[in-house]
Amino acid sequence: MANKLKARIASGKACVNGWLAIPSGFSAEVMAGCGWDSVTVDMQHGIQDYQSMVQCFQAMDKHPITPLVRVPWNEPGIVGKALDGGAWGIISPMCNNAAEAKALADACMYPPLGKRSNGPIRAAAYGVASSYQTTANDEVLVIPMIETQAGIDNIDEILSVPGISGIYIGPSDMGFSLGLIPILDREEPLILGIYEKLLASCKKHGKFAGIHNGSAGYAARMTKMGFQLCTIQNDSGLMAKAAKEAITQFRKEGGNVAA
Amino acid sequence: MANKLKARIASGKACVNGWLAIPSGFSAEVMAGCGWDSVTVDMQHGIQDYQSMVQCFQAMDKHPITPLVRVPWNEPGIVGKALDGGAWGIISPMCNNAAEAKALADACMYPPLGKRSNGPIRAAAYGVASSYQTTANDEVLVIPMIETQAGIDNIDEILSVPGISGIYIGPSDMGFSLGLIPILDREEPLILGIYEKLLASCKKHGKFAGIHNGSAGYAARMTKMGFQLCTIQNDSGLMAKAAKEAITQFRKEGGNVAA
Amino acid sequence: MANKLKARIASGKACVNGWLAIPSGFSAEVMAGCGWDSVTVDMQHGIQDYQSMVQCFQAMDKHPITPLVRVPWNEPGIVGKALDGGAWGIISPMCNNAAEAKALADACMYPPLGKRSNGPIRAAAYGVASSYQTTANDEVLVIPMIETQAGIDNIDEILSVPGISGIYIGPSDMGFSLGLIPILDREEPLILGIYEKLLASCKKHGKFAGIHNGSAGYAARMTKMGFQLCTIQNDSGLMAKAAKEAITQFRKEGGNVAA
Amino acid sequence: MANKLKARIASGKACVNGWLAIPSGFSAEVMAGCGWDSVTVDMQHGIQDYQSMVQCFQAMDKHPITPLVRVPWNEPGIVGKALDGGAWGIISPMCNNAAEAKALADACMYPPLGKRSNGPIRAAAYGVASSYQTTANDEVLVIPMIETQAGIDNIDEILSVPGISGIYIGPSDMGFSLGLIPILDREEPLILGIYEKLLASCKKHGKFAGIHNGSAGYAARMTKMGFQLCTIQNDSGLMAKAAKEAITQFRKEGGNVAA
Amino acid sequence: MANKLKARIASGKACVNGWLAIPSGFSAEVMAGCGWDSVTVDMQHGIQDYQSMVQCFQAMDKHPITPLVRVPWNEPGIVGKALDGGAWGIISPMCNNAAEAKALADACMYPPLGKRSNGPIRAAAYGVASSYQTTANDEVLVIPMIETQAGIDNIDEILSVPGISGIYIGPSDMGFSLGLIPILDREEPLILGIYEKLLASCKKHGKFAGIHNGSAGYAARMTKMGFQLCTIQNDSGLMAKAAKEAITQFRKEGGNVAA
Amino acid sequence: MANKLKARIASGKACVNGWLAIPSGFSAEVMAGCGWDSVTVDMQHGIQDYQSMVQCFQAMDKHPITPLVRVPWNEPGIVGKALDGGAWGIISPMCNNAAEAKALADACMYPPLGKRSNGPIRAAAYGVASSYQTTANDEVLVIPMIETQAGIDNIDEILSVPGISGIYIGPSDMGFSLGLIPILDREEPLILGIYEKLLASCKKHGKFAGIHNGSAGYAARMTKMGFQLCTIQNDSGLMAKAAKEAITQFRKEGGNVAA
Repeated sequence: MANKLKARIASGKACVNGWLAIPSGFSAEVMAGCGWDSVTVDMQHGIQDYQSMVQCFQAMDKHPITPLVRVPWNEPGIVGKALDGGAWGIISPMCNNAAEAKALADACMYPPLGKRSNGPIRAAAYGVASSYQTTANDEVLVIPMIETQAGIDNIDEILSVPGISGIYIGPSDMGFSLGLIPILDREEPLILGIYEKLLASCKKHGKFAGIHNGSAGYAARMTKMGFQLCTIQNDSGLMAKAAKEAITQFRKEGGNVAA
Repeated sequence: MANKLKARIASGKACVNGWLAIPSGFSAEVMAGCGWDSVTVDMQHGIQDYQSMVQCFQAMDKHPITPLVRVPWNEPGIVGKALDGGAWGIISPMCNNAAEAKALADACMYPPLGKRSNGPIRAAAYGVASSYQTTANDEVLVIPMIETQAGIDNIDEILSVPGISGIYIGPSDMGFSLGLIPILDREEPLILGIYEKLLASCKKHGKFAGIHNGSAGYAARMTKMGFQLCTIQNDSGLMAKAAKEAITQFRKEGGNVAA
Repeated sequence: MANKLKARIASGKACVNGWLAIPSGFSAEVMAGCGWDSVTVDMQHGIQDYQSMVQCFQAMDKHPITPLVRVPWNEPGIVGKALDGGAWGIISPMCNNAAEAKALADACMYPPLGKRSNGPIRAAAYGVASSYQTTANDEVLVIPMIETQAGIDNIDEILSVPGISGIYIGPSDMGFSLGLIPILDREEPLILGIYEKLLASCKKHGKFAGIHNGSAGYAARMTKMGFQLCTIQNDSGLMAKAAKEAITQFRKEGGNVAA
Repeated sequence: MANKLKARIASGKACVNGWLAIPSGFSAEVMAGCGWDSVTVDMQHGIQDYQSMVQCFQAMDKHPITPLVRVPWNEPGIVGKALDGGAWGIISPMCNNAAEAKALADACMYPPLGKRSNGPIRAAAYGVASSYQTTANDEVLVIPMIETQAGIDNIDEILSVPGISGIYIGPSDMGFSLGLIPILDREEPLILGIYEKLLASCKKHGKFAGIHNGSAGYAARMTKMGFQLCTIQNDSGLMAKAAKEAITQFRKEGGNVAA
Repeated sequence: MANKLKARIASGKACVNGWLAIPSGFSAEVMAGCGWDSVTVDMQHGIQDYQSMVQCFQAMDKHPITPLVRVPWNEPGIVGKALDGGAWGIISPMCNNAAEAKALADACMYPPLGKRSNGPIRAAAYGVASSYQTTANDEVLVIPMIETQAGIDNIDEILSVPGISGIYIGPSDMGFSLGLIPILDREEPLILGIYEKLLASCKKHGKFAGIHNGSAGYAARMTKMGFQLCTIQNDSGLMAKAAKEAITQFRKEGGNVAA
Repeated sequence: MANKLKARIASGKACVNGWLAIPSGFSAEVMAGCGWDSVTVDMQHGIQDYQSMVQCFQAMDKHPITPLVRVPWNEPGIVGKALDGGAWGIISPMCNNAAEAKALADACMYPPLGKRSNGPIRAAAYGVASSYQTTANDEVLVIPMIETQAGIDNIDEILSVPGISGIYIGPSDMGFSLGLIPILDREEPLILGIYEKLLASCKKHGKFAGIHNGSAGYAARMTKMGFQLCTIQNDSGLMAKAAKEAITQFRKEGGNVAA
């Protein structure tokens, strides 16, 4: 199976996912060399567009990570371009019901399962070129985000849509949607209960669940609840965290000492 | 004084310097918001060129950091473009003697002190526009790198060149030049002795010294030796450090647990 | 209030708006230093896309202008990206009715007022970071364009949609829609009558009105009718105007004289 | 003759030259449509590099202007790239003597006149492709800048270098070099006397002279002194001039009126 | 008629169309100089976005080809931007019925025929500027792709939509849609019969038909069936073909010989 | 040995080299997949700069080709950046004598053999990271171009410079330098005699020779003379060749047939 992330998830293991907001092939290849199982170009809230996605993918290709994309919206034009560009999976925001999940699956799947248009200009070079189109429907991960009350309510119908591989939870939007503040690494029993419900539904339908996290510790906890695709922060957030820690240490240990 | 880094150094304080290898305005503005005193666009070994430097500067302008550039080589064309683009200081690699220091100062200083050509297309917008050219010679930092045996031997003649503001030490190249392995945060007595010698020469000439460091702890130690401009790693290095730590924690605490 | 344009409009003053068609951070920062109250990146008819918008915003951040975006179309993906990128207002073309206005407001407003997804990657750095999401619904300007017969006919229902801040008139498209030629600075009584009607409706609903103009004189006249957000040409148009005037003067006064 | 600027100069006419600091093909093509005889991409003080030069040239090719480049420095690598990219003339800063002029001519001229390397990747498409290399030495304008005391003193030896087509005066750097403030459109008798001297030397050697100007009126005056290549400001300066005039008129006539 | 491709088609001639997947103005201008009647920037499956389209158009403007765009999806925002950017025709994927064809025509046509918004920022410079808007509806080619069973079934209603100029066949998607493998240059009688049916319908409605081909020979055959707009491969495919042929010849004739 | 090209040359085999003028990661990765032994980014006459070189390298990394760079000029700044960016060899134009060859070797070699500065920001990721600096001097190919009479005359002293790996012949510049027209695939006995002399000198010094060719047939012939690094055209030239052949066939076989 060309999609190593899918294989790892199928084997029951938890996967750790990097997240790219910086529109640079160089920072992408540095991230890709750090040990993530998959790396996602975030075209929704990251400073990314189609061309920066392509550059990130080109720069990451030599590393054994699975490239994913979060698209800015559930729109077939950009979903198709992301897949043609080399994505092995699509995370799509704000899925509320089966109709939206079906539209996503249609955009991700070739006929007869869907309506994706043929032209995998970079993707076909990944596996055996002539066979990409025959295996893509089995390889590509189709991952709607569950982050609204409607999405929670309709989880069973969403997961019943053919082609849907799993779900991805956006904790800050889910909180926002429920009248809470928009943060990650949530501890409200209400939210944790929803996670349990969604995981149970995934288990029932034979699908996996992923979640965005603000820290490695919380992400690790989530694997014990059953989440298999766990993102930790993003590239610029990790950079800022390390930079602030270094500056703080410098100021404390030596920075205030006059020469 | 528009150049806050120069003022801070003049006040006897140590400064912590960020280092940009990622050619992205977005990562630059994130770095610029972390608390550095100055941030340097590295056009020598970073993935930077003139246009990415401009984008980094534009994105950092709203933050209270002093922008610097390490030029790829001691060449008047790129030195002028870096200053016109808004740099308040130039770090120039591999300075071996007074003639090279003089060429650098000529490229950085307007007449009558030097030969810099007039045209501060972005720099003039920093201070009071009409006065930039009358104060630039006082504001701009001219910083040759000392990283070869010749540079060490000729430190006094280099520091005697009018216009030179201070020096910046490249520990890995200095080690390489002396037959050692090219690393940062060196502990060889030979090297530390050279640092002492260079700092003493700077003190004698009324100049400051800076150094590139691989960790906050070592950088803090260097301030106690007398270094006032201390860089810690670079943007992509800090990002990779945080990413690897997060992945390691994830794998240890939870990543191996099957869903 | 972080949004100075909104505050100025609320105080009853007229505002002059710059318009960016050139996809360059440098021309954007030059424009931003000219004295406009706000500057709009035109992603519909300008040579702009998301990445050039980000570069323009980064380059303008140091100037006291309010950044706006005209999106290419009323589509939630690009509206969200423009706001996350730092826009304090969205001008959206071709609004015909309340349903379209509601879709726009939903894309611009966080819950519970709308459906905007959380992730203000650059916007949160503007005000107090942790509070952006709590104030954004009050700060962001939501501005549908009225430029079709349907939009004119449905102005009251459009202005009744919660979240709509005001309207922006596109005179050339409005003329086109009514069977006239597509020009700015119109003098037809029919059109001026429509402007009066739209302004009256805005006044009734407590909303402001803006308009695109081809000259400063006409824009000034429009403030006397009651328009508070008045654009004058765009960057490339202003440049071409000045260039042609200079060339004409040169040719007339001296250019034809042989050396 | 493919180089229309050269032909126009040879016919004794004055030419008006546009100047590009904005690194955008779009603003370049707008400028190129305004009526200039030639348009120069300023790689020294403009926000331009090699790739933006190529984009400007591509965008201007359909317009009947002659494309020129001011290189960042008298360095054969960038001179060759500018000519290969399609420039029909090179303006090179800070020429002080015949040796520097000779180095410039060598970089601009094919053997046997110079040492330019063959590979006119875009330039050959301008004229008849197979003949570019046989006519380039006759077509390309080689224009050292005279802007230092040394350059003034050595004007005759500079103009005696085979291949030099004319000179270009940088008034602000010339003033700086002479201890004056760096401005354009100078009125000091000392400077005007230097202009006369340089023009006389050009006339003696059968070469033309150009000059950078801040206004159309001054540029027109210069044609009467004998200057044939007269630049007026640059793209961003013209844009800012028109923008500020429009804003001032708006504020005066209507901008202060409350709605 | 400014649109030379439309004129050539109207005269009954077959046209050969180049196809750009490489996002580079330079490769675009090289392609444009090869002799194609028209050149299409492929924003659907090519590595193209809006800015690369503009650069390709700028670089091709000097060549006598008609620029077209295949948009990523039938969405009015990008259709408008492509036309404003200078496209003389829009090829839009996956048209299934008259409603979709009508939406496409609305996006391509100015009032009263459609709903295109006025602002031809680059397009107006092509013909006589002030007249662009009066002739655009006659000049612009509106070309839905027929590549699904639904599109085939509804060909007559699609061709009956006012404003539709012709159709373009995507053989690989058509095959996919019909349960066949996705290839070009098809020989299945079923497919060839569909081509005949579609051509007959075009003839009946006075419209033209185009088709994407993998080889010049097949494209030539298609002209004999009646196709008038025949694409051959794309830029990167042609490049790879020539590269592989050269390498094969080198390896065979000499490459294995040791020095 | 990480440098597969060097190993292949050392084994006595001839190598075929691709040449990139198109500044696009996408066209680079397509070229890299065609079967070349090495691929050279041409920063001298190609439309390439440092950032496009990095993008080409990132996109080619997954393919088993050895990446080389032709630098625009023998200047240590750009040589260092090309090597740090990942080049395994430097082709440097217009080498005339041992001093120039020595300067090139100094820029390419780490101490103690040369003066290259440490900072292999992308190169170190190729082999085993921590060992790059210890093996780079053995791996990197240092290849001066011989293309002037002086270079031919001084071939023995050039090849005697420590660190020089081989030479690369530029046939068009060599012809130009000798008073001939600048073409590839030369047949003049004078030139072929020079090739023999240069090859003999290389053999004597244990170095290899390369040459730029316009066709596969001529390149194959050159291997029989002893050339081991044979370039065939470049990316855009191969594309244009295939495009013109396709158009010619189309016009001949079918293009003139009316529908």
